[in-house]
Amino acid sequence: MLDQRLLQPVWWEENEQGVYVGLIDQTLLPQQTKHLRLTSEVEVAEAIRALRVRGAPAIGAAAAFGLVLGLARQVRERGETLGLVEAREQLQAIGALLTTTRPTAVNLAWAIKRLLRCVDENFALVRNAQELQRVLLAEARAIVQEDHDACERMGELGAALLAEGDTVLTHCNAGALATMGIGTALAPIYVAHNAGKRVHVLVDETRPLLQGSRLTAWELQRAGVPLTLITDNMAGSFMRQGRVQAVFVGADCIAANGDVANKIGTYSVAVLASVHQIPFYVVAPTSTFDLSLSSGEQIPVEQRKPEEVTSVRGSIIAPEGVNVTNPAFDVTPHQYITALITEKGIFRAPYEALLRNVW
Amino acid sequence: MLDQRLLQPVWWEENEQGVYVGLIDQTLLPQQTKHLRLTSEVEVAEAIRALRVRGAPAIGAAAAFGLVLGLARQVRERGETLGLVEAREQLQAIGALLTTTRPTAVNLAWAIKRLLRCVDENFALVRNAQELQRVLLAEARAIVQEDHDACERMGELGAALLAEGDTVLTHCNAGALATMGIGTALAPIYVAHNAGKRVHVLVDETRPLLQGSRLTAWELQRAGVPLTLITDNMAGSFMRQGRVQAVFVGADCIAANGDVANKIGTYSVAVLASVHQIPFYVVAPTSTFDLSLSSGEQIPVEQRKPEEVTSVRGSIIAPEGVNVTNPAFDVTPHQYITALITEKGIFRAPYEALLRNVW
Repeated sequence: MLDQRLLQPVWWEENEQGVYVGLIDQTLLPQQTKHLRLTSEVEVAEAIRALRVRGAPAIGAAAAFGLVLGLARQVRERGETLGLVEAREQLQAIGALLTTTRPTAVNLAWAIKRLLRCVDENFALVRNAQELQRVLLAEARAIVQEDHDACERMGELGAALLAEGDTVLTHCNAGALATMGIGTALAPIYVAHNAGKRVHVLVDETRPLLQGSRLTAWELQRAGVPLTLITDNMAGSFMRQGRVQAVFVGADCIAANGDVANKIGTYSVAVLASVHQIPFYVVAPTSTFDLSLSSGEQIPVEQRKPEEVTSVRGSIIAPEGVNVTNPAFDVTPHQYITALITEKGIFRAPYEALLRNVW
Repeated sequence: MLDQRLLQPVWWEENEQGVYVGLIDQTLLPQQTKHLRLTSEVEVAEAIRALRVRGAPAIGAAAAFGLVLGLARQVRERGETLGLVEAREQLQAIGALLTTTRPTAVNLAWAIKRLLRCVDENFALVRNAQELQRVLLAEARAIVQEDHDACERMGELGAALLAEGDTVLTHCNAGALATMGIGTALAPIYVAHNAGKRVHVLVDETRPLLQGSRLTAWELQRAGVPLTLITDNMAGSFMRQGRVQAVFVGADCIAANGDVANKIGTYSVAVLASVHQIPFYVVAPTSTFDLSLSSGEQIPVEQRKPEEVTSVRGSIIAPEGVNVTNPAFDVTPHQYITALITEKGIFRAPYEALLRNVW
């Protein structure tokens, strides 16, 4: 049984000494489970940028807590000298800082916008910055709770698509470590497993940063879900041998037409699944959709530094000075997606009309 | 311009002190270019098994030299007390040892068989083991020379398929380090580049053992060929963006129907190329064909140890005890292959009749 509490990737901490955003430093997993106590919005921004916390829903929560932390720090330091107008300006600046840490995952900007809207809505209702902080913390906690519940619901919906004995391939980590609940792509697997359904997971290691081997393998193993770890380039061969019954992946951004940005390599898996007539499911909460983007063409794709490709955990694996490109994401056109599984239901093509109806 | 001499992956050495098989220890590249002097067939077998020398044609040459080394060592130690009958028995035993080091690459068994046939054919013509050694060394050198020439020819044939400005994707290393000449898959690129044609190479890093990033990137960089290193899972996304005009890969075994076993991940690249209507070429000398195998189903696929997946150059990247499979090769059905480029010409489907006609 999955011990969810221990896998919470980010949380709020408050004691006599101060206020903190707590997180598991995911860059150190699986060798080390180190908890960090971040004391400022700048530290939260660094943690998001360095992928100490990652996964679209988790960075949404981290950013929300980071924004509250920025205000709470000011409130602690300045007490009643911090006026409401200044507090709002500070929050807008902190929001801008946090929003720019990673460009692709929608949940980040979505969470910040939601908190800043909450500031506006409550501005006339609160008496001081301390009260504003309380309101914002409640809103951040609501985001966490909603994400937790969305994971459960997506898990139930997705589990119904799994048959006894199925092997599910997944790419990157869209599990408990990536969300505030039991994950997106992994949620159906956890729900099926916990209901006694026999499912096996084929885990793509997910180069360059190995979220599959370091994080997904680790959390599945911990939960007692049977898995086989493979390198990304083995997926096609396993599909050809009939050893994959379904693919479940998460998402960082979903456009209005159903195009999905997710970890680099997702597109290849989708094409391979299509050729082998294997259903390809994207599991993501509605907070990952950006209906202002008409298609995947408009999704900004984060480019990360070449060292992620030319070295692995400090070991150099390529000649010095080699030319590298390192897009962190790719876009899978909706044609390759069998269904989008959200907490509001399962959507199948044509996506656009459906999505617009539900939101 | 490619300095070919320095890139010879394996060679014969002889001096007053002894006889040796020399090789570049490819497990240490690109950080270290270490030359090994192997003094026995057991050391050669170990070097092949540990991938210090790899690439189907190069391990064919290494095995041929290893067989001669085994005999030469006996001749040195025992002089005239080593009779011809015993020498032949020794050679058969050494041949069996070397043949079992790696199961998939055809060139290995092919080279050993060719030398043992040479033993039989010359058995009545030579006067002693020393003379037999000379004949076998000449035959091993003939294998090397033929492979060298085959590379040149495949390079010329393949270069004609490349247009000015093309970007070619390659997987694993099928270059100078894998052969006794300018490579198989990389030969067309070297020929085109040396003729002043502008070509760019997209290099798959090729997990788990990173022959792309460690070897292909290194030898292309050394030869001044422009390249971009990518993780294996980026290939599909680059194809979708129109950034790949052709794929060239080598082979470890080609069956009579044109099915090709090559480094794990080749199949995925072939499927992706097909979906994106990009020509997919396999470049291999005729020594890599095994016409006794009617299809790829019959090709034995080497399974290697899990540690190759769970660690990278000594760094652990997965949780302890995780379940892993690690097939070193996959099989690409001939339907996905645009053409087979050999030193005897370019073959297109249907392969079977053509191949049977030429051999």
